[in-house]
Amino acid sequence: MSDLDGTLAALADPTRRGVVELLRRRPRRAGELAESLGTSPPAMSRHLRVLRTTGLVDEDHRGEDARVRVYHLRPEPFHVLRRWLDEVEKFWTLELASFQDHLERTRGTGKRRR
Amino acid sequence: MSDLDGTLAALADPTRRGVVELLRRRPRRAGELAESLGTSPPAMSRHLRVLRTTGLVDEDHRGEDARVRVYHLRPEPFHVLRRWLDEVEKFWTLELASFQDHLERTRGTGKRRR
Repeated sequence: MSDLDGTLAALADPTRRGVVELLRRRPRRAGELAESLGTSPPAMSRHLRVLRTTGLVDEDHRGEDARVRVYHLRPEPFHVLRRWLDEVEKFWTLELASFQDHLERTRGTGKRRR
Repeated sequence: MSDLDGTLAALADPTRRGVVELLRRRPRRAGELAESLGTSPPAMSRHLRVLRTTGLVDEDHRGEDARVRVYHLRPEPFHVLRRWLDEVEKFWTLELASFQDHLERTRGTGKRRR
């Protein structure tokens, strides 16, 4: 499984995107995330495990109480995703131009609909 | 299911990302996509159905032979994904600064590891 497979599958869930949206402002505890997003603590634990496995978030124990884990975002997987999007969109103009050409070349031949 | 759920789940598959990478340069037939990516025609049909359902690709019958469907990319879902990424990364500097603050504030209290 490539990094992108994991990143995209992890972000395909609205609760996990909610976690990302909350963490982009500041690190938070799991309980705080569960409460903000209206999920049970065990469900939040599962979501956080997926996000940690794919490297989108990390935890640390450096808060006032070492037993409390605090979660923060890791930028790298987002950068990898952005680079892939950049690659796709780099050819956008070219692709559209080529599609225009294709319509142009085949204009009036075998059209089923306009 | 939001648009982003579908877009991200569709793109989480390496064969479907392969289709996107091939189509970014020019429209192609399903058979050509299957051959380039080493998948069976039925498997490619299923992948193309997922990509069409989520609006990432569209088909047209305007080639020389109207029976042959040609697939092309649709920009919109990629733009929606990019806007979401922009939103996440907009707070990046702020989030990192806040994380630094958090480490600063809690320095030496309850650290488990350095």
